[in-house]
Amino acid sequence: MVEAGTSPSIARVRVERVGPAGADERADVVVVEEPLHVHVEHRGVLHLLGSTMRTPGHDLELAVGLAVSEGVLRSADDLAGVRHCRDGTGGAQDGDVAVLLRDEASPDLSRLGRVSTPSSACGLCGRDEIDAIVASAPPVLREVVVGSGVVAALPDAMRERQGVFRRTGGLHAAALASADGTIQVVREDVGRHNAVDKVVGWAAMQGVIADVLVVSGRAGFEIVQKAAMAGIPVVVAVSAPTSLSVDVARECGLTLLAFAREGRFTVYSGRDRVVVDPVPVTD
Amino acid sequence: MVEAGTSPSIARVRVERVGPAGADERADVVVVEEPLHVHVEHRGVLHLLGSTMRTPGHDLELAVGLAVSEGVLRSADDLAGVRHCRDGTGGAQDGDVAVLLRDEASPDLSRLGRVSTPSSACGLCGRDEIDAIVASAPPVLREVVVGSGVVAALPDAMRERQGVFRRTGGLHAAALASADGTIQVVREDVGRHNAVDKVVGWAAMQGVIADVLVVSGRAGFEIVQKAAMAGIPVVVAVSAPTSLSVDVARECGLTLLAFAREGRFTVYSGRDRVVVDPVPVTD
Repeated sequence: MVEAGTSPSIARVRVERVGPAGADERADVVVVEEPLHVHVEHRGVLHLLGSTMRTPGHDLELAVGLAVSEGVLRSADDLAGVRHCRDGTGGAQDGDVAVLLRDEASPDLSRLGRVSTPSSACGLCGRDEIDAIVASAPPVLREVVVGSGVVAALPDAMRERQGVFRRTGGLHAAALASADGTIQVVREDVGRHNAVDKVVGWAAMQGVIADVLVVSGRAGFEIVQKAAMAGIPVVVAVSAPTSLSVDVARECGLTLLAFAREGRFTVYSGRDRVVVDPVPVTD
Repeated sequence: MVEAGTSPSIARVRVERVGPAGADERADVVVVEEPLHVHVEHRGVLHLLGSTMRTPGHDLELAVGLAVSEGVLRSADDLAGVRHCRDGTGGAQDGDVAVLLRDEASPDLSRLGRVSTPSSACGLCGRDEIDAIVASAPPVLREVVVGSGVVAALPDAMRERQGVFRRTGGLHAAALASADGTIQVVREDVGRHNAVDKVVGWAAMQGVIADVLVVSGRAGFEIVQKAAMAGIPVVVAVSAPTSLSVDVARECGLTLLAFAREGRFTVYSGRDRVVVDPVPVTD
């Protein structure tokens, strides 16, 4: 498990950093990703406003801002307060946050019916959902082994096959690759989760089982969750993981490699699937 | 309105590019962002699997991948097909996609109850929701004017006040600023929408009305929607906008400035709030 760090926003984790000169183990920090459920209280009644995967810190501001964004808090004058919930009160759980509206406020609570309940489709997940993922994800292939040079080369290989990004600068990419580094498919989307779903769907339609999922950005919880559900054993991300993605990768037995840039990457989970290429001998 | 481009993934838009040498109008392209509703059909019954804001293209793969990620399609053997829906069939709308499961499959349809309905909290929005946003957003202050030098300097000013990112590399940031470029608050989060909600919430709690919202990454639909609901007239993004964010900004009367990097930025909407600083005379 990832350990709590000195700030609620940061968690400590042991990793291995792999580069051209070999591998070394070290302490690292990852950003914390956890669910928060936000309620609105008006005239003594608590309504679920929404839920979000967030980094802890400034939770009260986040709750008030969500109420503004959702059109429930139309004016700062309508804000009576904001508080952490006590377990059981009005259906809220410990750790939830409630935004208190003045009695005189006339919020459009009909909007609340549109707010999502927790769903992995929204990238939202709590402890129960993690357990469900671990239980329901198919067993991943443990025999896949990827060389460090292959991992380091995958992001560039994916980028060479991206089309739309070069024209708009606005897209995330995902790719599937075999363990020898052959790119099988590349898809782009404005949402990183959609790009992953597109390649996962391609594989299911082709009957292909992929060894490696490559993503152009960060590897948050939902990316690792999708790899686990698709039975893909190795995830390579160009940017950072989160506390929750590391936890889910470790619990599901996935290999999670992140910060894959400039010939280097960091191993957050599943080190046994990575073979560090021999360092070239120079004299 | 943003015009369709040569690819369904790309839309054409007229913009103004502003830099140290002044401003010039040009044609530009932005990535398309549109909602897609995905259904699962099993034994003749259609179930809503989920909805997502996506870039059009490879929609069938996206639908199949979502079915895998959500645990409804457990094996490629269970996949009977995937098709675009015809309006009215089983509650689906034209343009929706349905994943067909074999009769012999035994999908866990209890999971479908957890899938979200369209909500701006999930960054999901269709034409009806855009109209609702335009109708419900408070009128934005039109008298705010921001100098081009101020806009260009805002991303660096925000970055200097970010704390967690420097340690983890994994966070999005949002800031509020006054029209003279003074940063009022900076917040970070693993989700860009949360970072924006945190600064919007801060403003509501402080009773502050901000002139400018600055975001460290892309300005998708949900970022512009949140600015509109909070009555913030100017959005400055370090990275790209989308077709939908440009549409919403124009319809809500917001100023949308993106690719704010290295002393330059691009004006996608609300040019009247930007004053281009005089070019220094050199001879």
